[in-house]
Amino acid sequence: MVNVAVLGYGTVGSGVVQVIEDNNEVVCKKSGTDVKMKYILDLRDFPGDPYEKYLVHDFNTILEDDEVQVVCETMGGVGAAYQFTKQCLEKGKTVCTSNKELVAKHGPELLEIAKNNNCSYLFEASVGGGIPIIRPIMDALAAEKIESIIGILNGTTNYILTKMEQDKAAFEDVLKEAQALGYAERDPSADIQGHDAARKIAILSSLMLGETVDSDKIYTEGITGITADDFAFAADAKQTIKLLGVSKVTEDGKPLTYVAPFMIDKSHPLAMVNDVFNAIFVTGNMVGNTMYYGKGAGKLPTASAVCADVIDGARHVGKNVPCYWENKEAALAPFSEASHSFYIRIKADASAELEKLIPGGKFLTADVAGQKAYITPVITEKKYYETAATLGDAILSRVRVYQ
Amino acid sequence: MVNVAVLGYGTVGSGVVQVIEDNNEVVCKKSGTDVKMKYILDLRDFPGDPYEKYLVHDFNTILEDDEVQVVCETMGGVGAAYQFTKQCLEKGKTVCTSNKELVAKHGPELLEIAKNNNCSYLFEASVGGGIPIIRPIMDALAAEKIESIIGILNGTTNYILTKMEQDKAAFEDVLKEAQALGYAERDPSADIQGHDAARKIAILSSLMLGETVDSDKIYTEGITGITADDFAFAADAKQTIKLLGVSKVTEDGKPLTYVAPFMIDKSHPLAMVNDVFNAIFVTGNMVGNTMYYGKGAGKLPTASAVCADVIDGARHVGKNVPCYWENKEAALAPFSEASHSFYIRIKADASAELEKLIPGGKFLTADVAGQKAYITPVITEKKYYETAATLGDAILSRVRVYQ
Repeated sequence: MVNVAVLGYGTVGSGVVQVIEDNNEVVCKKSGTDVKMKYILDLRDFPGDPYEKYLVHDFNTILEDDEVQVVCETMGGVGAAYQFTKQCLEKGKTVCTSNKELVAKHGPELLEIAKNNNCSYLFEASVGGGIPIIRPIMDALAAEKIESIIGILNGTTNYILTKMEQDKAAFEDVLKEAQALGYAERDPSADIQGHDAARKIAILSSLMLGETVDSDKIYTEGITGITADDFAFAADAKQTIKLLGVSKVTEDGKPLTYVAPFMIDKSHPLAMVNDVFNAIFVTGNMVGNTMYYGKGAGKLPTASAVCADVIDGARHVGKNVPCYWENKEAALAPFSEASHSFYIRIKADASAELEKLIPGGKFLTADVAGQKAYITPVITEKKYYETAATLGDAILSRVRVYQ
Repeated sequence: MVNVAVLGYGTVGSGVVQVIEDNNEVVCKKSGTDVKMKYILDLRDFPGDPYEKYLVHDFNTILEDDEVQVVCETMGGVGAAYQFTKQCLEKGKTVCTSNKELVAKHGPELLEIAKNNNCSYLFEASVGGGIPIIRPIMDALAAEKIESIIGILNGTTNYILTKMEQDKAAFEDVLKEAQALGYAERDPSADIQGHDAARKIAILSSLMLGETVDSDKIYTEGITGITADDFAFAADAKQTIKLLGVSKVTEDGKPLTYVAPFMIDKSHPLAMVNDVFNAIFVTGNMVGNTMYYGKGAGKLPTASAVCADVIDGARHVGKNVPCYWENKEAALAPFSEASHSFYIRIKADASAELEKLIPGGKFLTADVAGQKAYITPVITEKKYYETAATLGDAILSRVRVYQ
């Protein structure tokens, strides 16, 4: 029998308890042993809650109970969550987490502690919510040299971009609507400025490379600059706009990793990923292109992924489930050398100069008064910024084009 | 160190050798041990082949060599492949296979032999080629009650349907073109009549239920009846046509499993799966909808999946990797009670009678001389066949509508 404790009885934590209780038959069958909830740690009381009996306020009750072999950390943050995780692993308790911030910041250190204590640090839920992506990369694509990972990794921004396209609406209006519906936080900056996606692509890149990609060091651009006009021009070019997390292994083996909105052809599988759905496009040297799609957030999808880890933990009590991620920082390829086409929306009277500075592109035909939109040939980031400096505020917006 | 033997040096077998040799560094790292090719079994000689040194003609060389812990069965068929697999497992050698026919026919028996001999029978490559799907169902979605699996499981038919739509071409012409390009076999019947897809959905259903779904007992309809006219009407309704393998758990817990072409809305993620790509749409009670996309066939994608199993086998030498599939036949829900909308293409002069027999539907407006197309409300298969019997050969074609 395996006893489980859940740290933090918030949205994901309560979902984990629900999955373990409601799907207990399948959880036990797949674990090959009985799996039982034993404790829920939270500072609050939950009078009348159906799982009130599991509630404890003192972390040491869990830490000192040798019957608890698997702990789910669904607190979030890198303070107490980090300390508790470390202490559990040092006691040989497997920790399953949905905490992407902690995984991105301390993942390899915690993996090492787990290894040294014959237990595991598992984090399927930290990227892509309910979408199986960590295991496919580590196990099903184990024989591959992964060449690139490109993902729609944030549900809030994908919802906003989908609505902007469908309703021809402005960013600010859709953001307000998303907040009213609970799809965006009251302080939406981590989502709309791309930082949430940056943490996720950093974790995926680290797994791809086996070394840490620091999410604070990658180029990160959000969607606040995207307008209804950009979608009008995109439609004209049979494109849509998505916020992508991108990581590609360059020729010298370094990762080129960044987060930015991209125009993407309507026929690409990522283009049909709408609303709060996420998808991750993984390319390997043998398998070619694969894609994983599902709900990237939400109580039960995320809890389901935590519980898949609980089952893995229950199957491997006293053993370490290996993860190939060394505690060593990867050298990143410089973003200034990244190359793409750019879509540039510009005041009509500056369009001739733009074409002279970056010849060989084409103008889109959508009709927006006083504006033109130009698709450049493939140029480096550096070349773009040089041109932009010359043209100044004649440039109304620019979006990279995914190819 | 783990030594590997490959049975059958055909397309997939030679791909497996290539992945193990070319990606050896990553294969060893992920296995946590050295992985080495030792034997290739084939009746033929391959003079000058770079891996000629591994070639043996006698299966017993492999069977009796205790240094061989992992065997890849890439022969196909259910004759020698079945005997060899059984003998290897009885000797405690893990077998990794791409042979869907054998898995569908003898899967649970071979799994049991593996379990009793502390080795594993692994078959990631048997469904969806390079797409990770067996592991996501067994591991990443382990905590789920899976409610349905719906897949585009055959690359040949998906290529044909994609081309018919894009080129407004007839089935026979596209089939000939596909044969010329090597995308369809000289005898294409297993593909175009749906039997290949039936084996794959049977395997996936068996994993969903934990009991065997017999592929010979499920309703199987191919794509030979689909015409350019059907695509014209489908376009009118913003739909496309895909060959789907479907398995849904009904209210009484029985699977409703079948293979048939379906009209499917252009906005559905499965609708954008084109050419030889495959995709599998899995719905769980907690996670909701997830989808897995990639190349469903081909030498290297399939070989990559076999090698993911080799790595799993190498990590678990002397142990059984569990699989929840009992050697017991599942009771199937009767197909006659399945309910869908039907698209019915009918001679124009019989369309009023059709509407009288199945009221409440709507006529599509595409213009094909002397024909009408009608989308019925949701009716049972039984009701459709009663109506069809009344209308006789006034019905020119009918395709179920996916909802």
